[in-house]
Amino acid sequence: MIILGIDPGTATTGYGVIKIPDDILSREFKYDIELVTYGNISTPKDRLMEQRLLMIHHELDKIVERYKPNLIVIEMIFFGRNIRTAISVGQARGVVMLSAAKFGVPIHEYTGPQVKLMVAGSGRADKNQVHEGVRKFLGVNGKRHKKLTANWKGGHLDDATDALAIAITHVLKLVNK
Amino acid sequence: MIILGIDPGTATTGYGVIKIPDDILSREFKYDIELVTYGNISTPKDRLMEQRLLMIHHELDKIVERYKPNLIVIEMIFFGRNIRTAISVGQARGVVMLSAAKFGVPIHEYTGPQVKLMVAGSGRADKNQVHEGVRKFLGVNGKRHKKLTANWKGGHLDDATDALAIAITHVLKLVNK
Repeated sequence: MIILGIDPGTATTGYGVIKIPDDILSREFKYDIELVTYGNISTPKDRLMEQRLLMIHHELDKIVERYKPNLIVIEMIFFGRNIRTAISVGQARGVVMLSAAKFGVPIHEYTGPQVKLMVAGSGRADKNQVHEGVRKFLGVNGKRHKKLTANWKGGHLDDATDALAIAITHVLKLVNK
Repeated sequence: MIILGIDPGTATTGYGVIKIPDDILSREFKYDIELVTYGNISTPKDRLMEQRLLMIHHELDKIVERYKPNLIVIEMIFFGRNIRTAISVGQARGVVMLSAAKFGVPIHEYTGPQVKLMVAGSGRADKNQVHEGVRKFLGVNGKRHKKLTANWKGGHLDDATDALAIAITHVLKLVNK
């Protein structure tokens, strides 16, 4: 099963693709999560909003076509942001949801505190703790652990890491039901 | 010049298309606004959000392809709504902006108070006053005035009327510069 996590934003939309065995529920070791890819879709500030949204939409379409996720997971946001930001995040979300609907990929949503709780063990975990959690879960099977950590160092892939955290949240919810 | 006004919403996205002479600025009578069409794109409540957004996107694409607007005008929202609503409106806005970007149609935005001020004469005008203003401007040349008023009676075309108000606002801004 391929899961695409997305952290939507107009300036940067982070994405992360992970893979879990289809029979994960019947396995003894339930955290066999493989990192497939991750990255940021960044759009230039000097472009019009609608053009930035179109760029995000095109890139997402490419990612969905290439990795053929069974599921898209995004963060549900209800609080902690002002109206201007909420509208902007909503616009990016709309574009993400459109890509999902176009390809018939179902969407799951988790709130920020849910992601923090599942990945870092506390609903109030900070960004570093969440990223440490992502490293832990993706490093379990040893694959690509180093590469991921290396890229993370600069901190410029924050959004991609958040996207991976959202995707991992779905796996943890799935296997801990 | 064809102007498409849009009032974006997940449940109902209102749209209104108006036409003004290309040489409107050099004419003595500057309110020669012709109503081309208007309507609501309504999506069923029991469908998933992403499917509703896709429906809106498809319908909008059809409207843009059919009426070939030179400009799309939408309302800019910054306040007076809670985060949940703002995210939802943002999602619908994202889909509208995507249609505009796909067809290369420029977008203009006006705030609610700007629309009220231009169409109804006061930034604090209520819905009825705005609708009365829309009737006034579109009824000036006598065309389709009756039909529009008739359809409005039920009040179910509120969103379409708001969309027309936004489109008219652009004309008033244009000729009153």
